[in-house]
Amino acid sequence: MKIESVDFHYLSMPVIHDIGDGSQDALLVSVRTDNGLVGWGECEASPLVTIAAWCCPMSHSACKPVSASVLGQKLETVADIRRIHDLVRANSLDLLQADHALSGIDIALWDLLGKALDAPVFRLLGSERAYPKTAYASQLFGDDAAATFAKARRVADAGFKAAKFGWGPYGRGTVARDADLVHAAREGLGADANLLVDAGTVFGDDVEAAALRLPALQSARALWLEEPFVSGALDAYARLAAMSGAVKMAGGEGCHHAHQAISMIQHAGLGFVQIDTGRIGGITSAKQVADHARVHGTRFVNHTFTTHLALCASLQPYAGSAEDSLCEYPCEPSLLADSFTTSKLLPDADGFIRLPEQPGLGIEPDLAALEKYRVDVEIRVAGKTIYPNFKPIP
Amino acid sequence: MKIESVDFHYLSMPVIHDIGDGSQDALLVSVRTDNGLVGWGECEASPLVTIAAWCCPMSHSACKPVSASVLGQKLETVADIRRIHDLVRANSLDLLQADHALSGIDIALWDLLGKALDAPVFRLLGSERAYPKTAYASQLFGDDAAATFAKARRVADAGFKAAKFGWGPYGRGTVARDADLVHAAREGLGADANLLVDAGTVFGDDVEAAALRLPALQSARALWLEEPFVSGALDAYARLAAMSGAVKMAGGEGCHHAHQAISMIQHAGLGFVQIDTGRIGGITSAKQVADHARVHGTRFVNHTFTTHLALCASLQPYAGSAEDSLCEYPCEPSLLADSFTTSKLLPDADGFIRLPEQPGLGIEPDLAALEKYRVDVEIRVAGKTIYPNFKPIP
Repeated sequence: MKIESVDFHYLSMPVIHDIGDGSQDALLVSVRTDNGLVGWGECEASPLVTIAAWCCPMSHSACKPVSASVLGQKLETVADIRRIHDLVRANSLDLLQADHALSGIDIALWDLLGKALDAPVFRLLGSERAYPKTAYASQLFGDDAAATFAKARRVADAGFKAAKFGWGPYGRGTVARDADLVHAAREGLGADANLLVDAGTVFGDDVEAAALRLPALQSARALWLEEPFVSGALDAYARLAAMSGAVKMAGGEGCHHAHQAISMIQHAGLGFVQIDTGRIGGITSAKQVADHARVHGTRFVNHTFTTHLALCASLQPYAGSAEDSLCEYPCEPSLLADSFTTSKLLPDADGFIRLPEQPGLGIEPDLAALEKYRVDVEIRVAGKTIYPNFKPIP
Repeated sequence: MKIESVDFHYLSMPVIHDIGDGSQDALLVSVRTDNGLVGWGECEASPLVTIAAWCCPMSHSACKPVSASVLGQKLETVADIRRIHDLVRANSLDLLQADHALSGIDIALWDLLGKALDAPVFRLLGSERAYPKTAYASQLFGDDAAATFAKARRVADAGFKAAKFGWGPYGRGTVARDADLVHAAREGLGADANLLVDAGTVFGDDVEAAALRLPALQSARALWLEEPFVSGALDAYARLAAMSGAVKMAGGEGCHHAHQAISMIQHAGLGFVQIDTGRIGGITSAKQVADHARVHGTRFVNHTFTTHLALCASLQPYAGSAEDSLCEYPCEPSLLADSFTTSKLLPDADGFIRLPEQPGLGIEPDLAALEKYRVDVEIRVAGKTIYPNFKPIP
């Protein structure tokens, strides 16, 4: 079979708020082959800019639109996905946003191939079975300690054995206020749950500012401090890791190429590498990172703050690794993200998430529910409409 | 003064060929302040996708259009440029293409501030003087050894003391053919010139394939092998560097954040770090890298294959470093790139390039000459035209 068309579906809440909630819009991708099969994926990315990366005019041989490396390609084996993946990386080397566009396409290719070969994606990736993962409730910090306590209590009551608090006021005020936030989260969760803290890159590369937060994290027994710095600030991560004791460093969600995540594993002192399949180049790149992390003894965790399609895709690369037992579970989705799929991956009574055993990803978008969130895009270049109804130059 | 408007000027040759020549299109940026001053910059990036990164709808608090962090900002001191720069990085953290958009804007901010303060940019950066640089003629390999010999002879005859050959057939055929290409280049240049070879990331992360090319590079006395691998493949670079003897590793042009280049300096065994100010986040980020490279003993070189505006911007960050003596000099520009500016940085009789001493960059685009290369872009989202005439939401 051959890839006949790729369609992007830009979906958005009617109003986008200036908060860290990445589920307020979405870019759903469908890939269709000439035998009528359809695979679905999602880019964790700016929808408009990613669509532009798909259809833009070529600038030179290493700055081609992503479409140039995807449309018309043969898709019959896992090797074909890897070949298409490598082709996009080479042909769009200098097109920065291409990695985010590739991510959703790559996920859709795995879904489609799984459907064609009647196998779940994790099995195509070489995993005999998908181990259940402990869902950690992923949410933003409350605006103050009391609000954070209430949020923590709510997810503990809902049965979560682990929870993460991030962004919001953390790192933006005094060290004492941050300590209050972290202790409130611990108190709300109870003594036994895993507590995770996400600084949302707020410290830039200021190791000293981040280090001032370590005592509170240690006394509240946080399992990790996530993204004190931006992805790629290897030296800052490594310096903080050397001081952090039982609190591990977590990071990597910003990586858009397997090499970047592998470099973080090698040089940033990470305890946990967090990969968003919707950014790193899809399931293909995420699996490379998962394999490398396992050899290196670094724990792999998904990064997912949006839909259950994204969640399902993000779990495939490490489904076969029993040791990598945690799973980020979005628990404050927007109405859009909440209505995204016709089924969901719900935690069981023990707080475990299990991947579907159906072919492909085993989860489908709810197109009828999504209809009202659709955003039309039209792009004209030199007087010609290049999107929608993009037709590559023959 | 305050930033009143930013305009993008998408320029393109009428036909784009599928070759490594990145000068076939361009994205010129102008920034205007409320007192009527104008600064100019250039993004080394896909024009359409970069424009989309400027004007796209917000996705969440860390995925805002670049415009959100630039328009209306105060611009009076160097600290203001750094503040605006940091604001873009934070507000557009998850918008991958933002770094390429920021690059051209940042360059224009330095140009504008230099004009406002009546100082060349290198002086604003703290360099008392701009040291002359030895221009190396940067060009693509010929299709075969004979064509490469002829190209080498031509630049030697033109007086260049150094030349680089890259892309084209190199790394795509046999080891013997690559050896012929490299030896032909050396023969054409003569024994005394610096010979540089650019593999254009052709080896992916295949260290063994790249290592097979080392003997020919060593016997032809190449100063460096550039980009055997993609930026960020730190381990592959470091392994090849350990085998390469007198042939140094050069790389870094793909970096879009100072952290990435600093990681390459620290962990990739680079002899030369090559920074494109049009990609890394502008002059601000390039200067951070130059400062770090100097401390670490790695040589800094510009990456420029396009216009003399880009060339002039790319030299500012290391103008004050006498030890960093080489300068990539585009010598096969498209007609568009060749007519880009009203003046040029021409090598003197000894092959040296000198920066202008005028305020700002000291070079201006030739708007009349560029008129015929203009490409109109129109972007509509949800029925509203967001580009051109982008008006941010108040």
